[in-house]
Amino acid sequence: MAGRNFLFVPGPTNVPDRVLRAMHRAMEDHRSSDFPSLATPLFEELKKIFKTRSGQAFIFPASGTGAWEASLSNTLSPGDKVIAARFGMFSHLWIDMAQRMGLDVEILDVEWGEGAPVERYQEALAADRAHRIKAVLFTHNETATGVTSDVAGMRRALNDTRHPALLMVDGVSSIASIDFRMDEWGVDLAVTGSQKGLMLPAGLGIVCASQKALALYDQAKLPRVFFDFGDMRKANASGYFPYTPSLPMLYGLRESIGMLLEEGLDNVFARHHRLAEGTRRAVKAWGLELCARAPKWHSDTVTAIMVPAGFNGAEVIDVAYRRYDLALGAGLARMAGKLFRIGHLGDLNELMLLGGIAGVEMAMRDVGIKVELGKGVAAAQEYWRSTASPLDQRDFPPRAPDAQPAAATPKKAAAGASR
Amino acid sequence: MAGRNFLFVPGPTNVPDRVLRAMHRAMEDHRSSDFPSLATPLFEELKKIFKTRSGQAFIFPASGTGAWEASLSNTLSPGDKVIAARFGMFSHLWIDMAQRMGLDVEILDVEWGEGAPVERYQEALAADRAHRIKAVLFTHNETATGVTSDVAGMRRALNDTRHPALLMVDGVSSIASIDFRMDEWGVDLAVTGSQKGLMLPAGLGIVCASQKALALYDQAKLPRVFFDFGDMRKANASGYFPYTPSLPMLYGLRESIGMLLEEGLDNVFARHHRLAEGTRRAVKAWGLELCARAPKWHSDTVTAIMVPAGFNGAEVIDVAYRRYDLALGAGLARMAGKLFRIGHLGDLNELMLLGGIAGVEMAMRDVGIKVELGKGVAAAQEYWRSTASPLDQRDFPPRAPDAQPAAATPKKAAAGASR
Amino acid sequence: MAGRNFLFVPGPTNVPDRVLRAMHRAMEDHRSSDFPSLATPLFEELKKIFKTRSGQAFIFPASGTGAWEASLSNTLSPGDKVIAARFGMFSHLWIDMAQRMGLDVEILDVEWGEGAPVERYQEALAADRAHRIKAVLFTHNETATGVTSDVAGMRRALNDTRHPALLMVDGVSSIASIDFRMDEWGVDLAVTGSQKGLMLPAGLGIVCASQKALALYDQAKLPRVFFDFGDMRKANASGYFPYTPSLPMLYGLRESIGMLLEEGLDNVFARHHRLAEGTRRAVKAWGLELCARAPKWHSDTVTAIMVPAGFNGAEVIDVAYRRYDLALGAGLARMAGKLFRIGHLGDLNELMLLGGIAGVEMAMRDVGIKVELGKGVAAAQEYWRSTASPLDQRDFPPRAPDAQPAAATPKKAAAGASR
Amino acid sequence: MAGRNFLFVPGPTNVPDRVLRAMHRAMEDHRSSDFPSLATPLFEELKKIFKTRSGQAFIFPASGTGAWEASLSNTLSPGDKVIAARFGMFSHLWIDMAQRMGLDVEILDVEWGEGAPVERYQEALAADRAHRIKAVLFTHNETATGVTSDVAGMRRALNDTRHPALLMVDGVSSIASIDFRMDEWGVDLAVTGSQKGLMLPAGLGIVCASQKALALYDQAKLPRVFFDFGDMRKANASGYFPYTPSLPMLYGLRESIGMLLEEGLDNVFARHHRLAEGTRRAVKAWGLELCARAPKWHSDTVTAIMVPAGFNGAEVIDVAYRRYDLALGAGLARMAGKLFRIGHLGDLNELMLLGGIAGVEMAMRDVGIKVELGKGVAAAQEYWRSTASPLDQRDFPPRAPDAQPAAATPKKAAAGASR
Repeated sequence: MAGRNFLFVPGPTNVPDRVLRAMHRAMEDHRSSDFPSLATPLFEELKKIFKTRSGQAFIFPASGTGAWEASLSNTLSPGDKVIAARFGMFSHLWIDMAQRMGLDVEILDVEWGEGAPVERYQEALAADRAHRIKAVLFTHNETATGVTSDVAGMRRALNDTRHPALLMVDGVSSIASIDFRMDEWGVDLAVTGSQKGLMLPAGLGIVCASQKALALYDQAKLPRVFFDFGDMRKANASGYFPYTPSLPMLYGLRESIGMLLEEGLDNVFARHHRLAEGTRRAVKAWGLELCARAPKWHSDTVTAIMVPAGFNGAEVIDVAYRRYDLALGAGLARMAGKLFRIGHLGDLNELMLLGGIAGVEMAMRDVGIKVELGKGVAAAQEYWRSTASPLDQRDFPPRAPDAQPAAATPKKAAAGASR
Repeated sequence: MAGRNFLFVPGPTNVPDRVLRAMHRAMEDHRSSDFPSLATPLFEELKKIFKTRSGQAFIFPASGTGAWEASLSNTLSPGDKVIAARFGMFSHLWIDMAQRMGLDVEILDVEWGEGAPVERYQEALAADRAHRIKAVLFTHNETATGVTSDVAGMRRALNDTRHPALLMVDGVSSIASIDFRMDEWGVDLAVTGSQKGLMLPAGLGIVCASQKALALYDQAKLPRVFFDFGDMRKANASGYFPYTPSLPMLYGLRESIGMLLEEGLDNVFARHHRLAEGTRRAVKAWGLELCARAPKWHSDTVTAIMVPAGFNGAEVIDVAYRRYDLALGAGLARMAGKLFRIGHLGDLNELMLLGGIAGVEMAMRDVGIKVELGKGVAAAQEYWRSTASPLDQRDFPPRAPDAQPAAATPKKAAAGASR
Repeated sequence: MAGRNFLFVPGPTNVPDRVLRAMHRAMEDHRSSDFPSLATPLFEELKKIFKTRSGQAFIFPASGTGAWEASLSNTLSPGDKVIAARFGMFSHLWIDMAQRMGLDVEILDVEWGEGAPVERYQEALAADRAHRIKAVLFTHNETATGVTSDVAGMRRALNDTRHPALLMVDGVSSIASIDFRMDEWGVDLAVTGSQKGLMLPAGLGIVCASQKALALYDQAKLPRVFFDFGDMRKANASGYFPYTPSLPMLYGLRESIGMLLEEGLDNVFARHHRLAEGTRRAVKAWGLELCARAPKWHSDTVTAIMVPAGFNGAEVIDVAYRRYDLALGAGLARMAGKLFRIGHLGDLNELMLLGGIAGVEMAMRDVGIKVELGKGVAAAQEYWRSTASPLDQRDFPPRAPDAQPAAATPKKAAAGASR
Repeated sequence: MAGRNFLFVPGPTNVPDRVLRAMHRAMEDHRSSDFPSLATPLFEELKKIFKTRSGQAFIFPASGTGAWEASLSNTLSPGDKVIAARFGMFSHLWIDMAQRMGLDVEILDVEWGEGAPVERYQEALAADRAHRIKAVLFTHNETATGVTSDVAGMRRALNDTRHPALLMVDGVSSIASIDFRMDEWGVDLAVTGSQKGLMLPAGLGIVCASQKALALYDQAKLPRVFFDFGDMRKANASGYFPYTPSLPMLYGLRESIGMLLEEGLDNVFARHHRLAEGTRRAVKAWGLELCARAPKWHSDTVTAIMVPAGFNGAEVIDVAYRRYDLALGAGLARMAGKLFRIGHLGDLNELMLLGGIAGVEMAMRDVGIKVELGKGVAAAQEYWRSTASPLDQRDFPPRAPDAQPAAATPKKAAAGASR
């Protein structure tokens, strides 16, 4: 098919050309005396992304799933009790992992579309006088339902109950896109992957650990080798890795972090919010519902849209992909067929999203959903127009006079002709 | 700015990633015994693009302007008379070049927005009993006004008047995008550049010459060295070039021609027509006029849109670029400020254009032009939806049942979860 | 520094430009209906690289270390006994991992520089009447010492003792470079990484498992989630992955396997042998010793060279790197400072190695080691000259006559001039 | 063939990976308001490369041949007399061009292998009392014979004779590699191409013109359109080009100039000299002669080596290319078969050249030339070793003790293990 694919799955996200260029490199000796000048600053820069000064960043050649595993295995022991809410596919999978690793998970089941139930967490913590709960597993942004939850609130709940449990946060689809403050919120283990807000291909599982979390390393009895914090810390201390790192990913990470810090994290968050809000305006104009059941849970990185009864979201996705080269996210598990998702995180702008929204309209109409073409587009356009930054005034050459004889020889304008 | 630029100038066009990849290469010895295996097939493949069997293709490290110069200088002598219509900036510039090279140009001035006046050409040829006119200069697609003219008709006019003048065609913004048939239409010199339908960066000026044109080489007295056909033919005959060629451009050309022939030229033309027609539907929905004054002249590679009186097209372009990262073409010379242009040639699809059309709507509204947001988008969507190819039927997993208790453990769907 | 780095560490190896190009891609939806057309063939092609028909290939976003972990954790249970020889840093690290995972490792310590002691393995197996040994860990190519061991012999030892233990082979620095035959040699788990013979960046840990190994999955009680074979098999069956895969690495793997199969695996092995043998000739010409103590153990992928008493290999490596942009491998652990290593696997040819060998000579001289400059180079040149493939005869233009007056105007040769 | 090609033709030269990366870009609007921020600095930076403050740089989408043509056509008129020495293929071709453009060329024929005869130029200028000679054509570095001539001396000859002729210098294979001082030497037109010292692909013909040369524009009657300085100056003044420029080449040029200025031009020249001198030491060790007949003419960018009587240089080149993937330059015209050339300009280092020199030795031996393998390599090694920059002292971990029992468990060194 001609032209570019419109990639609106919530990861992998569009890798900026600048990052792809940075990744296109000959290999190097990862044991050379120059190598630390690449690796060492990455750990410091990552801490800025997580907004932590006292934490420590780990870069595993893995995925977000691997980063989950690293967080659990380096801090907990078999049979340890943890508490976790389940309100979407990814919070579910994390729980599933914890169970398979031999942890005792207290599950707080919530309707999918709602956020993490901070009050119920708090009740459970308050009831846990013996402090048997060793960790709170908290999904900041549930990618499957487009729901963002309140990490700061969770920290308050821990503080209010004076509970010493670790606060582990899945920030895979939030970090570097949605406001996240590791130190301020007292997060002990924050997890992300390279293929979301960091605008890289998949391949890195990234963990940031607090000093409190690191202090548990020696007593944590879950087995780990590949994901061992200790091996990493020892090698990282001098700017190396315990096993061969992916050079392209490290160079790409350096570039993508550079881009994020150049734009400024707060500007990045504001951009994500503005793009997300325009998308939600389009959904509203279509007369459709979000999966997220309340505005406080609206995610600025992914919007999950309920398809009307009688339609199958999978068909919308299929038509969008095969006919218009538009990739959307699917409904998962209990949401299968009931929704489709527009990922709007990473390297995106208004026109890309308008192309995507226009494509969604066409695909919905193609499968029979009654939406008016252009209506969602117009709502997003209006929002983005009205919230655009002002431009400084510029002068233009005047409009040519209307009446000229055909034979009047044009003059060659300096900024005009090109062949 | 985050996200991709939307490039809708009528050249350079979007270079497909596949072509960019092909161009990313270490240098090679352009005199090696392997080199002809790269170069020789290119000349043959280019002939397919021009639809000629008997012609010969030349690849100059230059631009379309250089290709114009090669065409004139290898076939004509100082003082030779040529005839050319002027109906836009590029037909004008070609005339200007011919004059500066010492040719005697009979100019047929035409209102900008109309096409080449085949009847007036024919009258002049009929009147030229002495056959002083040595060449007809004919701009197939006037990029400045979005006007396509009738090359086949021009050939008929030459035939009807039994006039032996060469037929030189500027196909810079038509070849590889709009139907062009060198042999069938008796074109003697067809000119294009790499940065339009061939989907490459600028840097190659390409000429295809008929045997009739080549036969004039010895008697043509216009000076030329860099653009000399003779040096090229001698070197090309064995698969080499008289001076160092651009390796990346040759590899890119091989890839882009490969893509065009894989898609099939007729499919490429049909795609361009369909995308252009949708764009014109958008313009109509806005209530604006095209620069092209009649449907027969509508260009399938570039649409020039008149801005209403009182507005300056340059301002639309400026706002589109600076605020929405959308690049549009400007009005040139006598059209300065009166129009803007949407180039829709090369590696494009519906969603890219919908993003571009949406951006045009926003920019027009931003400068005060009264268009309804989403209206042009909707017209294009409807056209593209209704003309989309049918998809083969596929089966989807059924929609999940609506009522499930929150605690029902989801199953991990193979095609579902990713972190 | 100007010019290219000469990369002679035994991994990461030089990634061919063709592979780097293939990896430079926009991201895609890894859940799309097109994705399996990328992923599914990779599993089949990988089996050709491992020379197995009945086995199953796994691609983990990890390193070779991760692949080790996957092999152990999916087939064994805590406390299981395994047997392993230790004769270099990497065989040691594998043992260390097994111990940390809770396995009971019978260690066969061997002088570093010798190969795996097949006879001692056989004795231990013969003595193990109760079949308490569940797996034999066997390092095919010990990268730290440049020693290749006899996998076929190990299989015979298992057969001769009718012992049912799994045969696990670390083929990280052998597979795709040195003859390896999974089915013929009855290997149950073969492990490699992407950054060696597969000529890719680090980032993939690859395992091939026999049906016998796969059958142990259900009873293997070592914990695993990220490295779980079951999740992989379920997702891979339909052409997907349980978590987001690295698109660039998969495209790169497709290209690199394509290159290996185009060249032909046996030709790849022969090329590695020829390059290795030339390198060894150079070492001999220098009057230095290999770490590998007998020809039967000479590795065709890495040559470890003992530095004379009184010198520190680390200094040779440092001078080579900083002064000549040449990266060599270091001596590890008990070999620290006693040797340096030339990795000669992957995308290499004679001139690259001659540049490397010349650089080694210079660095050795710079630190005071008495080698004659050019002597190792000459030995390698002679070997490679004398073993080069014959060329088909070609004709050349004759040599120009010797006596010509200075004023004789040269003719422009088609294959001559370039400016 | 596996591994990298060794490219030792004197252009195109190796494009650094950093430059290739910079060139891998999506297209942009070359009429945008941002474009001048790319283009305008290039003109200023180029002037640093030419060492001129008062001159003006022109960038044509062409080759060095085109740059020659631009220089002649913008300053001279038909029938104008120019004087030029012919001492190699490229000085010949420039003369040939001048003649074909209608200039009256006084040719100073010189034995190939000698440099430009400054004294004979001076005599002719002194004899030209009427100042009929309008321009001196001077080839700074004759690429075909590896001969560098004395531009400063030529300026003195002009000054001494008080002759007003323009001084035009072909610096295609010297500028950015060999000392060149446009202002100091009073050069009026200096010509180069992108594919030599500028380390880019072919595709740009670059001219720098003095104010004196520019002042001749209006009276120069040679026809030119594509190569017209006037169109360029008008467009360049505001940061644009009269026709579509090659975006990748402009981005590449920005990067390559950046690299040259980072290294420092004088360091670049010193590096070229040092590499060239090592190459000449190798030739001397082989007992062969250079084409350049005296040390004062030795070129630091290309070494032309005479093959002994009875051998054909073309055969050396063919064997080197097909058997060892080594590209050498050929003997041209009257030097056909008598020599081969090693280009050593651009992005090169010692080990690359040692690989190339080793390959030349092998190819010579393969065709029967009696050279001792390794001897040229050793001479170059010795020269480069003895002239290498001192390194700052570093500490290394001590060499491990020699006697250790095999069972001593190694410790995992942070900078040691990688799998």
